[in-house]
Amino acid sequence: MPGSPDSTADQAVEELVEQRRGKLHPAVARTREAVRTTLSELPHGTTVLVACSGGTDSLALAAATAFEAPKLGLRAGAVIVDHDLQPDSAHVAETAAKQCRTLGLDPVRVWTVTVGTEGGPEGAARTARYDALRDAADELGADVVLLAHTRDDQAETVLLGLGRGSGARSLAGMASAVGRVRRPFLEVRRATTAAACIASGLRPWHDPHNDDPQYTRVRVRHEVLPVLEEALGPGVVEALARTAGLLRADADALDQLAADVAETALSRAESEVRGEVGVLTDEPTAIRTRVLRQAALEAGCRATDLTAGHVAAVDALVTDWRGQRWIDLPQGVRAIRQGGFIILGPNVTG
Amino acid sequence: MPGSPDSTADQAVEELVEQRRGKLHPAVARTREAVRTTLSELPHGTTVLVACSGGTDSLALAAATAFEAPKLGLRAGAVIVDHDLQPDSAHVAETAAKQCRTLGLDPVRVWTVTVGTEGGPEGAARTARYDALRDAADELGADVVLLAHTRDDQAETVLLGLGRGSGARSLAGMASAVGRVRRPFLEVRRATTAAACIASGLRPWHDPHNDDPQYTRVRVRHEVLPVLEEALGPGVVEALARTAGLLRADADALDQLAADVAETALSRAESEVRGEVGVLTDEPTAIRTRVLRQAALEAGCRATDLTAGHVAAVDALVTDWRGQRWIDLPQGVRAIRQGGFIILGPNVTG
Repeated sequence: MPGSPDSTADQAVEELVEQRRGKLHPAVARTREAVRTTLSELPHGTTVLVACSGGTDSLALAAATAFEAPKLGLRAGAVIVDHDLQPDSAHVAETAAKQCRTLGLDPVRVWTVTVGTEGGPEGAARTARYDALRDAADELGADVVLLAHTRDDQAETVLLGLGRGSGARSLAGMASAVGRVRRPFLEVRRATTAAACIASGLRPWHDPHNDDPQYTRVRVRHEVLPVLEEALGPGVVEALARTAGLLRADADALDQLAADVAETALSRAESEVRGEVGVLTDEPTAIRTRVLRQAALEAGCRATDLTAGHVAAVDALVTDWRGQRWIDLPQGVRAIRQGGFIILGPNVTG
Repeated sequence: MPGSPDSTADQAVEELVEQRRGKLHPAVARTREAVRTTLSELPHGTTVLVACSGGTDSLALAAATAFEAPKLGLRAGAVIVDHDLQPDSAHVAETAAKQCRTLGLDPVRVWTVTVGTEGGPEGAARTARYDALRDAADELGADVVLLAHTRDDQAETVLLGLGRGSGARSLAGMASAVGRVRRPFLEVRRATTAAACIASGLRPWHDPHNDDPQYTRVRVRHEVLPVLEEALGPGVVEALARTAGLLRADADALDQLAADVAETALSRAESEVRGEVGVLTDEPTAIRTRVLRQAALEAGCRATDLTAGHVAAVDALVTDWRGQRWIDLPQGVRAIRQGGFIILGPNVTG
């Protein structure tokens, strides 16, 4: 049976033997092991697609997947998203596609997208990319899409979330598995994927965006992380990744508990959402504010505009009631306290 | 009644009038307002002690407290902890004490301590300082001790916690109120306390330790925060402080929920702590791992030695049971799974 502990153990032994003979570079072994761990949970016959830009991380992922997938009875292809933002992008995409085909991946498809403007240059490119991956997976009948984010990417994501200051969820980084997406390299360092490429004779494309300090992530990578490591000592990237995992578990638990409370505490009437003060009062702050946030979103606030400060002001209607007037929220939503309820909606009047 | 909304409002109006006349600097007004908010929650006749080093933040706190406390019917004194680590420390402490007396605080006492070595130089000094503040509060009959930590200190504390990578509690920063301690300046910037000192003609002592890069906190302050602000944009200090508040609420809620579960799931027999797998399995990861962490601490592990990795290994006995042998934990504690229980203790054998 593919993916059973025994067959995985056999492969590990086989690779160890190969490694002892001096044939397998440790970095290649590490990338393969990470991919094997992810793929061994998938049923025989699953189709996986590697999202490959031709860069170091995703090329190492393509190589490891091409090696591991057939042994586990899986079909592995690749999709290359051409963001069409640079003059030579079609050429870069075609080169990556050729490399994927040479590695033995099949099918391999280039997906050209049009990047919008909403959410800034990085956000818009990300939206277009994830949309394209979803479409490609649908069209090619893939059950799983593999992304090459590394532990370094995870650490950067945590620091970017820190700048928003919006709590556990924004510090929870990226999930190793969500929907069809899997991230086998989330515990692998970028230095390992780079070494694996060199050891395998792969020639990754170097994205000039990765050095362009106009991007916040690039500044975090090249300026913040080195200084943080110098101040706090080595192991900062690991600490940040560990933080992400712990806070993700916290956020998952609290979101679920808040959803349970919302079932009882919230009710809807026309355009209004009502929260029952008597139910909310007994909950701890972390859950109460999550329920109120959900109520504000349902009442029409946009998540990107609704701050922790807004939610705290609504929460004060519950916990620090002194006859306040209404609270103005984004998108013209208002919150008032009336007759034992917090009422949120676009037409609420005080 | 002191502290009632009306008397606070009267004072605010009084200060506004004074400010309009060009007498009250906005920074002084801000420090007083912050102290007033904290003090107005205390009952008439309470004795508060300002912990004052003579530095900028605590001198501004002493001045604001000396101004506000009498108006609210409170008695306000100061304690100066002399850490006896620098040749001129007795002189520095005496100068601070004189400044506090001039401001009208009474009683004012210098408390000389002996700093140990445990927990490194910063940790040992902190332990000695908090012990001294507790003793001083006891001896002087103080109900409340005011500490001058600012929003900048809070941001630094969050970044220091990030380097540990041990989850929400280590990112939760300092509490505005815990036990007898209150921190009125936790939402005030350091630049404001500095401006308040200048505007009031106070001459703060400049602690040379505050510029010594051998201290991690100093490196975070002078190297990490400016780079982080440049990369992520202004508002990073506020974002970090907001993060601390949100994660503190999360950690409080999850710790309480975990304590409730521990009541049911954990039992003690001689030197062993037992966790019932059937109860633990149904809990979300964030709560389950907190219960298991508590079990390991009760079984004899030291909090400073017990890592998230240790707890995750014990957790795998619950959620990923494949007949593993025991898990070795710090202080010679072992964890095994046996007969539907996770058993932790110093004498556990597999």
